[in-house]
Amino acid sequence: MNIKHVEHIGIAMPSEEESLQLGRLLFGREPDTVEEVSSQKVKTYIYRVGQTKIEFLVPTSEDSTIAKFLSDRGQGLHHLAFAVDSVEEAIQELKEKGVRMIDESPREGVEGTRIAFIHPKSTGRVLVELVEGE
Amino acid sequence: MNIKHVEHIGIAMPSEEESLQLGRLLFGREPDTVEEVSSQKVKTYIYRVGQTKIEFLVPTSEDSTIAKFLSDRGQGLHHLAFAVDSVEEAIQELKEKGVRMIDESPREGVEGTRIAFIHPKSTGRVLVELVEGE
Repeated sequence: MNIKHVEHIGIAMPSEEESLQLGRLLFGREPDTVEEVSSQKVKTYIYRVGQTKIEFLVPTSEDSTIAKFLSDRGQGLHHLAFAVDSVEEAIQELKEKGVRMIDESPREGVEGTRIAFIHPKSTGRVLVELVEGE
Repeated sequence: MNIKHVEHIGIAMPSEEESLQLGRLLFGREPDTVEEVSSQKVKTYIYRVGQTKIEFLVPTSEDSTIAKFLSDRGQGLHHLAFAVDSVEEAIQELKEKGVRMIDESPREGVEGTRIAFIHPKSTGRVLVELVEGE
């Protein structure tokens, strides 16, 4: 698995207002992209910073996994995504090593990417996403 | 404040063994740097990934802030560090905006960097570090 760079960092936030406030404080601007991911029941506020996107994740429904995270752990760093050449090959390689995957085949992420999450049981409880393409 | 890229991501880990295991799983290698930061009572296992360093932080003492984090929240993503041109200017600018700082003047980080932490009360509970130089 060839990890190229940190593709994005997902940060769970309770509201649009707090996401935009933090974006203005850190980056001095409005988001580069705002996208609703209906399959994940989140709205994402994305800021590009060098090779990496900072993604504020706001739940759009109470049964979103982000709503659950906010209620269990509070707002803050949620997951880490690495850019790889091929998500399909990465999944194959990890499964051969006995790694548990949340996604056993690639699914669609934001901005037309292909993604897969590794199960946190296999990564010392760090939630890691693999991303291919932009 | 000119944020250039994600300089590093700090991940709290309970032991050297688990840090090295996760490094092998994700990056297929041993750490690029191992450094003990006695002021923070942590040992850091650092992997360079594109513009960003992944830093596994293992407490060297029970009264380390990382030991407290592990006991309060469990292992996982701890803080996010952005590269800036000047930490001193960034602190000045943030203080003028009423932002609360953990470090009101730059202090020494790993690998000879100058760093400052913003107080999480001012950043929606996300622990953010600013880093100058390498």
